[in-house]
Amino acid sequence: MTAGAQAPATGPRRRGRPPAQRSEETHAAILRAARVCFSKRGYAGTSVAQIAHEAGLTSRAVYHYVDSKPALFADAVAGAHRRVGEEIMSRVAGRRGPRAALRAWIEAFLVLFEEDPSLVQFLGLAVVEAERNPELIDALPDRDAGLSALNHWFVERAVHYGEFAPGVDPDGVITLLEVFAAGLSLLASDGRERDHRAMLDVLGRLAAGHLFTDRREDGAAPG
Amino acid sequence: MTAGAQAPATGPRRRGRPPAQRSEETHAAILRAARVCFSKRGYAGTSVAQIAHEAGLTSRAVYHYVDSKPALFADAVAGAHRRVGEEIMSRVAGRRGPRAALRAWIEAFLVLFEEDPSLVQFLGLAVVEAERNPELIDALPDRDAGLSALNHWFVERAVHYGEFAPGVDPDGVITLLEVFAAGLSLLASDGRERDHRAMLDVLGRLAAGHLFTDRREDGAAPG
Repeated sequence: MTAGAQAPATGPRRRGRPPAQRSEETHAAILRAARVCFSKRGYAGTSVAQIAHEAGLTSRAVYHYVDSKPALFADAVAGAHRRVGEEIMSRVAGRRGPRAALRAWIEAFLVLFEEDPSLVQFLGLAVVEAERNPELIDALPDRDAGLSALNHWFVERAVHYGEFAPGVDPDGVITLLEVFAAGLSLLASDGRERDHRAMLDVLGRLAAGHLFTDRREDGAAPG
Repeated sequence: MTAGAQAPATGPRRRGRPPAQRSEETHAAILRAARVCFSKRGYAGTSVAQIAHEAGLTSRAVYHYVDSKPALFADAVAGAHRRVGEEIMSRVAGRRGPRAALRAWIEAFLVLFEEDPSLVQFLGLAVVEAERNPELIDALPDRDAGLSALNHWFVERAVHYGEFAPGVDPDGVITLLEVFAAGLSLLASDGRERDHRAMLDVLGRLAAGHLFTDRREDGAAPG
């Protein structure tokens, strides 16, 4: 269980340093509040005071955990990548075969979306905000960290086990995963759980080659 | 050729009403400037004066075409949906078979992305901005208009021709298209054309059932 997976702290604690055993919980509540506020109003339109209020804390209590608004943003991004990454890793690791692994990858997003929409939503919005605000230039994970690293791991694993057909460009698979992640993130606020489940089923059929009826007049199918 | 596809008007025209024959061109330049500014700085952080400057016009000239900032935003959204929709329609219409149609659908995004990244990028960001700003509540197209309507058309066409395997939920296909569109939109600013092309190839293989080597130990493959 990570910080990001916990429920926000209940009730305001308005004075002094929180007890040590509550520290992680409070930190998680701050990150969750940061995700919600940054997603709702954008980075420029959000103050640390608003995030503190959302978390039921004073600004001073928040500054106990982070030095600045950009640092809080970067912290929230890192936390979201960590939590999503863990969920994907744990689901993918136990699956046999690439289709099941791909399905597990997408399922992780849907489970997290149902658990906490702000988590999934923030992944995509963070990219938008980092592009808009120069002070966030270092806020996103490097290519060798966060979800990007995870997607590389996912694809390299499939390459290692010889799961891709000849001629498949691994970079194209990585980009496809990124497009999926970005799309799922952007639609995470829609409240359309049923549609998302139906989509997962469709994607499973697509990956299995069973989405369409088998008619060979289809000129554009490669291979 | 639509307004959205044209190059922006060159040079400032600082006085009075533009000549009638330039009207459509000027309108296109305003919409393009609106997409660029709203995408870069967000709706709240953008003024009509900034959009006018980006288009090489006076604010007064812009107000000749639109009544207000929210109206300009809605106009830009409608224009982007129209242009993207036309490109998809024209590409999909001539293809035989669902895999080729799906490929054409994605290709349309990539072609438009290379033609004008602001067009594709704005589609996704408009959703974000409309959620953040209450005055934009009516700015996005209804479900029966814009890209949403196009995706319905696309899927109903496949249903009509019996192209989906038994048990496929059309709503899941529509959601998958929406996730794709949102993801492509969000990644449209990356300048990674090669990766996007590689992704298209991977998607074509996925739709054809040829992405993975054919091993039947894969327990999660439906059907």
